[in-house]
Amino acid sequence: MSSESQAPSSASEPGQAPPPTTEQLQDDESKSVSKKASKKEAAKQEKLRRRQEAAIAAAASSLSVEEEDPLSSNYGGKTLTESPFDLNDWVKVKSLTPELEGQAVVVNGRAQTIRAVGKNMAFVVLRESGFTVQCVVTVQPDAVSRQMVKYVANLSRESMVDIQGFVTVPSVPIKGATQQVEVQVKKLYCVGRAMPTLPINIEDAARSDVEIEKAVQEGEQLVRVNQDTRLNNRVLDLRTPANQGIFRIQYQVERIFRQFLESEGFFGIHTPKLMPGSSEGGAAVFRLDYKGQPACLAQSPQLHKQMAICADFGRVFEIGPVFRAEDSFTHRHLCEFIGLDVEMAIKKNYFEVMDIVDRLFVTVFDSLNRDCEKELEAVGRQYPFEPLKYLRNTLRLTFEEGIQMLKDAGHEVDPLGDLNTESERKLGQLVLEKYGTEFYILYRYPLAVRPFYTMPCQDNPLYSYSFDVFIRGEEIISGAQRVHVPELLTERALACGIDIATISTYIDSFRYGAPKHGGFGVGLERVVMLFCGLNNIRKASLFPRDPQRLAP
Amino acid sequence: MSSESQAPSSASEPGQAPPPTTEQLQDDESKSVSKKASKKEAAKQEKLRRRQEAAIAAAASSLSVEEEDPLSSNYGGKTLTESPFDLNDWVKVKSLTPELEGQAVVVNGRAQTIRAVGKNMAFVVLRESGFTVQCVVTVQPDAVSRQMVKYVANLSRESMVDIQGFVTVPSVPIKGATQQVEVQVKKLYCVGRAMPTLPINIEDAARSDVEIEKAVQEGEQLVRVNQDTRLNNRVLDLRTPANQGIFRIQYQVERIFRQFLESEGFFGIHTPKLMPGSSEGGAAVFRLDYKGQPACLAQSPQLHKQMAICADFGRVFEIGPVFRAEDSFTHRHLCEFIGLDVEMAIKKNYFEVMDIVDRLFVTVFDSLNRDCEKELEAVGRQYPFEPLKYLRNTLRLTFEEGIQMLKDAGHEVDPLGDLNTESERKLGQLVLEKYGTEFYILYRYPLAVRPFYTMPCQDNPLYSYSFDVFIRGEEIISGAQRVHVPELLTERALACGIDIATISTYIDSFRYGAPKHGGFGVGLERVVMLFCGLNNIRKASLFPRDPQRLAP
Repeated sequence: MSSESQAPSSASEPGQAPPPTTEQLQDDESKSVSKKASKKEAAKQEKLRRRQEAAIAAAASSLSVEEEDPLSSNYGGKTLTESPFDLNDWVKVKSLTPELEGQAVVVNGRAQTIRAVGKNMAFVVLRESGFTVQCVVTVQPDAVSRQMVKYVANLSRESMVDIQGFVTVPSVPIKGATQQVEVQVKKLYCVGRAMPTLPINIEDAARSDVEIEKAVQEGEQLVRVNQDTRLNNRVLDLRTPANQGIFRIQYQVERIFRQFLESEGFFGIHTPKLMPGSSEGGAAVFRLDYKGQPACLAQSPQLHKQMAICADFGRVFEIGPVFRAEDSFTHRHLCEFIGLDVEMAIKKNYFEVMDIVDRLFVTVFDSLNRDCEKELEAVGRQYPFEPLKYLRNTLRLTFEEGIQMLKDAGHEVDPLGDLNTESERKLGQLVLEKYGTEFYILYRYPLAVRPFYTMPCQDNPLYSYSFDVFIRGEEIISGAQRVHVPELLTERALACGIDIATISTYIDSFRYGAPKHGGFGVGLERVVMLFCGLNNIRKASLFPRDPQRLAP
Repeated sequence: MSSESQAPSSASEPGQAPPPTTEQLQDDESKSVSKKASKKEAAKQEKLRRRQEAAIAAAASSLSVEEEDPLSSNYGGKTLTESPFDLNDWVKVKSLTPELEGQAVVVNGRAQTIRAVGKNMAFVVLRESGFTVQCVVTVQPDAVSRQMVKYVANLSRESMVDIQGFVTVPSVPIKGATQQVEVQVKKLYCVGRAMPTLPINIEDAARSDVEIEKAVQEGEQLVRVNQDTRLNNRVLDLRTPANQGIFRIQYQVERIFRQFLESEGFFGIHTPKLMPGSSEGGAAVFRLDYKGQPACLAQSPQLHKQMAICADFGRVFEIGPVFRAEDSFTHRHLCEFIGLDVEMAIKKNYFEVMDIVDRLFVTVFDSLNRDCEKELEAVGRQYPFEPLKYLRNTLRLTFEEGIQMLKDAGHEVDPLGDLNTESERKLGQLVLEKYGTEFYILYRYPLAVRPFYTMPCQDNPLYSYSFDVFIRGEEIISGAQRVHVPELLTERALACGIDIATISTYIDSFRYGAPKHGGFGVGLERVVMLFCGLNNIRKASLFPRDPQRLAP
């Protein structure tokens, strides 16, 4: 064996298993096995095979049907085996319409509710992608046995089932399902069993506060699932119509973001998340050991997206995770979230950047209202909200104008300080009253409250070529023209008390001829949260990470 | 001040600067300043303002023109000021064609080469997005002074300049530029100065080995820039035509990947990269402290993408960073790379997953050949390669067939072990000779060489419902049907020596009714590297991270 023997051996030995989450994209280089080792291997393989077969048998038997039944092949657990149905026969639940009357179909989904009527009949409401259909299991000679009805009646809710049957159209409307047809079941196989008692029920998780309070008034008590319980059982929580909607809305934001920017000559890049330890300051950084070097996780793609502009990439964006080790335990902070980052060379001034923000978000909002109607409705049913008010051309106010509006309303703030959350909310209200919009840009912030790489205003260096963007009184975007002159960048870093040595690679990038440029960053979860008027950013994150939560 | 005072104060105080890379997406909650503090602030602001003005003046003066010149407003450093040109007058270099003869234009780009001819004339070849145009500066009364020609002659290469002039069409072809027109310069401003001596020259970095060797044969010595020097000066290195091409090709792969999957009913998700410390085993994991809890960086989105399927998301994909702390210092391993991950509910069997892989990649390759012709040509000029050979319907061989082919060629390998890199290469050659393709799927791998969550074959548990995909003899994709039955998953994990307690959340996800499902993972950089026949994966990563490199 050559030097390759230092690499980990293959995973055939139980004690040397590969890490569970590895897709083996990066395989090891040593996989050849000598003949002697091969024999030893064979013995182990045999042992493994026997254990394996026992496990498969056990998994299968727990789902077995009553042996006495001559019709037993029409139902039962088909968890591991290949489905007996032809791929072409499969129909989506949402496609089950009266036009299919009399047709044979195969459907797959969850047993949302199961109800037996005597010993000869059972109903299963089958759910797939938010659509439901009532399936009827009735004893029939040569097809459905009493044992089959019993098997179906004993299914646990949320189990995955494959059903073969034919479509009928009942004479009265069906209340308990979205589809106005029934499936008369011929065969039913459980392919993924749920445990009989779930930690949370989907219907409880899907209930709105309005419903719960209404029930209280009627003297009834309904289960309210709190946020933490939801997150602890996220796989179940995510099955509610509202959550199914939220993450499709989230993807649509991302999709339109990308599509719009592509149409404006941008393209996507990927910058590293692992950074040299000293290159980012502050307490809000996750630190780690990188092969003996101090390293940290990127708090934003700021440095590298600017470097991409210095590398002649012109107009770039990035969609990726950013990491903040902040101890903020609020409704709007996460320790890991998805940043939508943009950086572009500018020709005249940073209004070009604001123009992009303006048109980009109007395009995103328009698309959500147009293309995600169903999803927005599902979200609104559980979490009622008013549609976002925004203008065709986004309102732009200078920071000074904002301060004046607050002042006029009797709300005194520091004209060269930053706005706190309360002032931002207040200004949001004033803007809504005066201009009728919940989405606006505030620009030309005081230099002192912006990061060191922000370009100072030429006419008054107390201010900067920067902006923030607000939805419903909360900040979602921060952007600016950047300092692209290394001498000024050094000066600004010094003025902000930053150790120049720690950012020398970054500053050096501007010594080879840097274009004038600017950009902005958006938090994806915040956009979704605020567009949908959600009260907690955790609702807009698939598996949220906050100072107290690192699982599931 | 309330409890908010615990949050960091605003960035106005030099010693308390914000971290340099923060876009302030996650702002602090405490920004209000008391009146007393406000006064103190004002004094600081004034001090800051004075320093600021001095810095801006210094930056401007270093680019100043000769004061004596009455035409001095037509040239010089306009680094910080707003451009005097109207946005509508700007023209892209690639749009400069003979049809524009006589028209006034404003262009922007890099001074690629500068050449003075006596004291009255200078030429600048201006480069923008890979296109170049020759700009002529000639002394003219009331427009171009001798001092201006001198200023231009002294410009450093790679500096960013704005030029106003008019288009002429010379009678002889222009050899040194892509555009067959000239710009007669009226005004020229340097907006981003490059240092006079660059660490690497773009033309050196853009040179192919073929050129260098040819020069050697002719007794000439040309500079060869090695891989490490390139990466140390990545901002310059990335300006070469090959690199400009590579990252547009990379984005195209990602774009078509997404587009194809969307058309097949998939949507994009984002799973967390911060994982509870114990949930991933192996040495190849980056560990960190998460608010006092042990944590690590995700080696793949495996767990969470499967959980998304259990949460009824149906068909999902994710494009995002994955982290491997492996010590592999090879041409094809990185410590951080972009994973293209797919997971889907399956109806019949895992051939549905392979069908997606097959059509997805044929679509990607077709698009690259069709839509990235220019970029592929740029890459090929520096790094010559043969176009990838692939079939309309991707070849699929079982692992056993592969082993047999190797055996028949006298290359003995363990029939139940994994293929090592050498065997994979060899098999790639044999497949190319026999089937005429460099892209194929090898499926039904021995169970023992796959991760514990891989579904064993029903007919022979020594094998598994899994596959790898190869380009030019190297693995780029790994995929499989997953075990969706919690009892079998537990058994498989135990058989692989995994501590069940560490993956209990993952296993629990399958207890609430899990769909049959499968998926795969692809390394984006590998796809680009192998499609373009590059010899090193670092060439396909914007800012690569390997066991020895964490910068820039």
